Amino acid sequence: MSAALEPTVEGDCTFGTDEPFRLNSGAELQSGTLRYALYGELNETRDNALLVCHALSGSARVADWWPQLVGPGQPFDTNRYCVIGVNTIGSCYGSTGPLSENPQKPHEPYGSNFPLITINDIVRTQALLLDHLGIERLKAVIGGSIGGMQTLSWAVDFPERVERCIAIGAAPLSAMGLALNHLQRQAIRNDPNWREGHYPHDRQPVAGLALARAIALCTYKSSELFTERFARRPDRSGEDPNNSFAERYDIAGYLDYHGALFTKRFDANSYVLLSKAMDTFELGRGYGSENAALRRISAHLLLVGISSDWLFPASDVRGLAERALAAGVSAGYAELTSTHGHDGFLADADQLAPIVRTLLEEKEYPAFAQAGRG
Amino acid sequence: MSAALEPTVEGDCTFGTDEPFRLNSGAELQSGTLRYALYGELNETRDNALLVCHALSGSARVADWWPQLVGPGQPFDTNRYCVIGVNTIGSCYGSTGPLSENPQKPHEPYGSNFPLITINDIVRTQALLLDHLGIERLKAVIGGSIGGMQTLSWAVDFPERVERCIAIGAAPLSAMGLALNHLQRQAIRNDPNWREGHYPHDRQPVAGLALARAIALCTYKSSELFTERFARRPDRSGEDPNNSFAERYDIAGYLDYHGALFTKRFDANSYVLLSKAMDTFELGRGYGSENAALRRISAHLLLVGISSDWLFPASDVRGLAERALAAGVSAGYAELTSTHGHDGFLADADQLAPIVRTLLEEKEYPAFAQAGRG
Repeated sequence: MSAALEPTVEGDCTFGTDEPFRLNSGAELQSGTLRYALYGELNETRDNALLVCHALSGSARVADWWPQLVGPGQPFDTNRYCVIGVNTIGSCYGSTGPLSENPQKPHEPYGSNFPLITINDIVRTQALLLDHLGIERLKAVIGGSIGGMQTLSWAVDFPERVERCIAIGAAPLSAMGLALNHLQRQAIRNDPNWREGHYPHDRQPVAGLALARAIALCTYKSSELFTERFARRPDRSGEDPNNSFAERYDIAGYLDYHGALFTKRFDANSYVLLSKAMDTFELGRGYGSENAALRRISAHLLLVGISSDWLFPASDVRGLAERALAAGVSAGYAELTSTHGHDGFLADADQLAPIVRTLLEEKEYPAFAQAGRG
Repeated sequence: MSAALEPTVEGDCTFGTDEPFRLNSGAELQSGTLRYALYGELNETRDNALLVCHALSGSARVADWWPQLVGPGQPFDTNRYCVIGVNTIGSCYGSTGPLSENPQKPHEPYGSNFPLITINDIVRTQALLLDHLGIERLKAVIGGSIGGMQTLSWAVDFPERVERCIAIGAAPLSAMGLALNHLQRQAIRNDPNWREGHYPHDRQPVAGLALARAIALCTYKSSELFTERFARRPDRSGEDPNNSFAERYDIAGYLDYHGALFTKRFDANSYVLLSKAMDTFELGRGYGSENAALRRISAHLLLVGISSDWLFPASDVRGLAERALAAGVSAGYAELTSTHGHDGFLADADQLAPIVRTLLEEKEYPAFAQAGRG
């Protein structure tokens, strides 16, 4: 595997402000930092920027997690566009979040005192970064999952600042999605090391966070993929599930392994916070109704459903595209055929490439109004 | 709601033996007790018995959990049949299980020293009870979920002792099913009160068991049902999920409530044990292959899939019916259209009634060989 594309500006960039930032909850962040990465160059008119929004556990390093899409000649063509990745506030990859110092308690991290955030909060901080970079209008915003929610929020909250939007595997969570997110947070809260979120940095609630991640992995993948990859085979290390309670099937070994691995790279408070932000995402908030929110959109909007996604069922994504179309939006729907479930937007990104390229390069979008019916 | 039908013999019956019982694992139970309930009377030739196998958290009291099917004039017509419910070994409703005294450690329960059991073990203890009752051959065995696994096991392991079998929402678990069961057991094991299964009877790992049950509830229901019942409504007690981490959506309140309720009526060791028995169920064990196992069946076999079941997808149940048919079994497939997911066999039992009645009353089964194609 080749090394990931490096950002144009070496290392990641940081944008900091001492201006207080008022969150939707009413709470204020006294100061804030956004970690971001730029790939390619901003042109003189600063109208060639693509904002790529990461998913729950992603980072500003877009080329690390979407290598099929970012680079010279790729759909996010770094010879033409300036691709911007921004770590969301609340995350643990460089932007202000629960691991940051709490200004009210010097030398202590916020931990679970970090206030509730919304998708709209995340997007408004990104807008501040664009102001700082002198970008008035984005050529496009693109993202999958919670990154897709940010994309939708951009379209609604800053209609004048975005030309095209592609949201993949994203819609307001259904009751089943809310249920599965809740169970993940419960898994973390049940861990005695959780301590209401006030754990020492080196004593995370690892068992709970690993279980949360394992539940999430089931929601990110599909039954079909698990059958294909693991079937009913015993754990590859030679365990025999018929022998003892501890011996596992291969799928269980996989979930345990990836659950444990995740705890080395992600913070439990960030997890709870971002999962909650996912839950509360609704387009209508602040606009009276979803329809009123959709009617604000002036961007060309493409929603992409993933055929085997059961966290964000393709039918939900398509339904949203149809409501957008009905609200007068230049909206389209495309479906990614993938056995990877919700994760298809990462695992089958090569299939996304032509879809993304079309939206970015076409001047007219005759296909999209039709795609919802396809 | 009217009171449940009472068993014919007042109270539940108990069958005890001091004969050691050798389990598939090689371990031996020194002695054993089976709690059972009889509805209706055995006829003189003792050939009118229906064995009804309960699901994971069920009991011998069949009429309590399948009231639509058991009673005078109902499909399990207690005027004609003697309906037998048997609490499975390993459960906590009267039969030998983790809460029973461990003969090796007088006055202490087995707890997690209770040995691994298999579906075949459960069925062989039921066969001992039938010997005791003088029943050579069952008119039928019926069950859903893990009760359906027992039904399938009856057909394969005791072909000469059963005339008709109806297994609903049952097949060997797929990788996703194995994953979801594993996560439930992990939720229990993560609870510090679990103590490797050696908890005092009054200090169960309630948080872990409640979470396990909440995960299970998601696997027993369907996304469609959750949307219909809960949508994105806030918790009915007046919580606002936008306000704080603790405030929930209604679906989360529902899962928490039913999770907690479950811990008052079920033992964590029994849960782990029976969930593991579900995992290891495969028809081929001991017979070389699934096909060899299926070829042993002489009963008329009806498999019923549930349209919205994602724990035991209807396609898996149908696939098993097709393999049985191909192996020469008088096998059929019917599909219960239900939005209740796996729980449909309980929640929509009134729709099961005509299916069950047909299998029990028809002399010939022309419909079933066709049903798999329907």
